[in-house]
Formats: sequence, structure tokens, C-alpha cells
Amino acid sequence: MRQFVLLAHDVPTTPDFSLDDLAGGAGRLDALCRSITASFVLSHGIRESVRVHLVIADELTVVFEGSELRRLNPDERSTAALVRTALAHREEAIGALPAEPSPGVALYRRDLAATLEAVAAEGPVVELHEDGEAIVESGVETLSGAAFVLSDHREVTADERRLLESVVDRRIRVGPRTLHADDAITVVHHYLDTDGYERF
Amino acid sequence: MRQFVLLAHDVPTTPDFSLDDLAGGAGRLDALCRSITASFVLSHGIRESVRVHLVIADELTVVFEGSELRRLNPDERSTAALVRTALAHREEAIGALPAEPSPGVALYRRDLAATLEAVAAEGPVVELHEDGEAIVESGVETLSGAAFVLSDHREVTADERRLLESVVDRRIRVGPRTLHADDAITVVHHYLDTDGYERF
Repeated sequence: MRQFVLLAHDVPTTPDFSLDDLAGGAGRLDALCRSITASFVLSHGIRESVRVHLVIADELTVVFEGSELRRLNPDERSTAALVRTALAHREEAIGALPAEPSPGVALYRRDLAATLEAVAAEGPVVELHEDGEAIVESGVETLSGAAFVLSDHREVTADERRLLESVVDRRIRVGPRTLHADDAITVVHHYLDTDGYERF
Repeated sequence: MRQFVLLAHDVPTTPDFSLDDLAGGAGRLDALCRSITASFVLSHGIRESVRVHLVIADELTVVFEGSELRRLNPDERSTAALVRTALAHREEAIGALPAEPSPGVALYRRDLAATLEAVAAEGPVVELHEDGEAIVESGVETLSGAAFVLSDHREVTADERRLLESVVDRRIRVGPRTLHADDAITVVHHYLDTDGYERF
């Protein structure tokens, strides 16, 4: 299982935004949707052994489960519609029980701390960051079952930094150029798909 | 200079399409826009030494020049707007002279044959294809000044195949999984940025 944790600082916690204005009114949800699709889509299908956690405003978390997802198209707009639908069902998420508005999509009342606790129970937690060590330093065995944490266009807050430091095993960069989050995810997949650039 | 040649079989040659329906009414222009942005965008700027040729219906070619581009946002919609604006200026493209509707964007009356001739004059031409040889077989020196050709959701036609065979030096695949075109472009950049996975 590969997991990605996406920190969404400015995405609304209610569905009151337009799919025509994802960059502005929805807090750069367009970029986050590109990261979600980069995590899952292949040319002929979906990566089933991937789980993505979209942590919205340190309050709600939308979890996408590759093995159950249906209808994840590669465009930003339809992915944003899945997020918006999940937010519309937020009242159904009670305590630890999620709302499950569509196959493979669950909305939890879960903040970053709870999400990090959940992923840390399953494997190493790695932060993707331009100041990290080169991905090749870690070795593919270490990373194959890891959760990769990425922030959106904002730096993590001081509180988030403290939380991350308590669970993150290491920080990793994927190359000499600083990439957008979705491209960094594509490179992580490439590194793992090729068993560390060994198998093509 | 890295160049990418994108074959757009179903994109309209006139600007009569809605930005709200890129996948349907605009012939999967959404996917092509993701390939254009994957070619150019970095987290803090644009790759200046990149040129992209969007060949529409084997009739018109929109050329994006990294060193001159302004306002290329990473979302599909704004990139599609650049293409649509270029098409709206098509009457200004006369003979070999392009229309130049916005900085770094030029629309030529140029078919695939003429585009391939132009890129082949500058370096090797490589087809990205799932049946090609592994990218690591070619070596980074060979590929650093290459033009990479990718088709959209359609297979190339028999005529296009003949044209490609006359100029393509080799076919390359980027890994064991078949990726969408934009992710394949991201991997090509990663391979070249890291000098063949050597420099991070």
C-alpha cells in the first residue's frame, strides 16, 4: 500500500464553492485534485493499492481508497466534484464513523494528528520536501509501504510542523528541480514502480 | 532544448468549444492541456528551455515557447483558454507566418509532416510509446536535446505512422506501467533533470 497525505489549508469545509473557480474560491482545490489523480490514474485503470488522505483545514479528512474507487476521471473538475459531494455529506460523519458518499470515498471528522496516527500505524511516514534528502538515499524497500506527506501551496504551520516531527521518519526530495506536488507524486510512483530505477 | 510534439486528433480547429466541456466537446483537450503544463511548469516558474508543439487535426500547430510564455497557470482551464484564443486568431496565420495571439504562443498552418521536419532539423526525434525500449537504454546524452512525440487517446493513424517512421530515431517507454501522457512527460523531465537518475 502506498499512501499520500495531502494538506489542504484553504479548501472550504463546506460544499459552497463552484467547480468553475477551483483555484480561487475553493482554495487551490484544482492543484490538490491534480495530486489526487496523480496518485491513482494509470493509462488503463486505477492504482488499486493506493490510499489518499486529503486533510482539509485540520478538521476533516477525505480518504480515497484505490481498490474501491469508481469513476475517478483524470480531470480536475470531476475529482473536485467528488470532494464537494463528500463535504455535502459531512453531517453523516459522526465520531469515528465516516460518511461514505460514493464508492471509495469516505469523509471523516479527523484532523491531521488523527490522520498521521492512522498512517503511522501502517508504515513509515515520509515528508516530501525540497529540503529533504535525495529519494535514492532511502532505498526502495523502505519506501514501498510508506505514507508520503505533502503540503499544498502553503508552508506547514508551526503546529503541523511539531506534529510532523513526531511521526515523520525522514524528509525526501525527488530531484534537483522543485516540482509541483502532483509531479512529485508521479516521480515517487516512478521510483517505486521501477524498483528504484532498476526495472522498466 | 527539450521539445514535445503532442498529436491532438479530435480537438476542434476552430474556437467553438466551451471551457466547461474540455473532455467532451473539445476532443479531450483537458488531457492535452495537462501534457502542456507538465512540459513547462515547475513549482516556482516555467522551464524556459522547452518548446511544445500541439498538432491539431494534422492541420494547425500551436507552438508554446518556454522562454517567452507568460501566464501559463498549471490548471487545465487556463491552458485551454490559451489554445482557444490561438484558434480564434487562425486567420492571421498565413503561409509560413504564424498568428501570435499571446506571448510565447504561436499558431501555424502546419501539419504533422511540417512539424516533424522542423523538430528533426534540431535533434533526434523520439516517440514515447508503451512498446518502446526502456528510457535508460538510450542514455541521457542522446535524449537531452530530443523531441518527444506523444499521441493523445487515439492510436496514430496509418499515415501518421508512416510519417513517424521516416523521422523517429527510436521508441521509448518510461517504466513498467503505462502512464497518461502528462505523467510520461513528467518522468522524461525527471530522467533528464537528474542526468539519468544520477544527480538529485
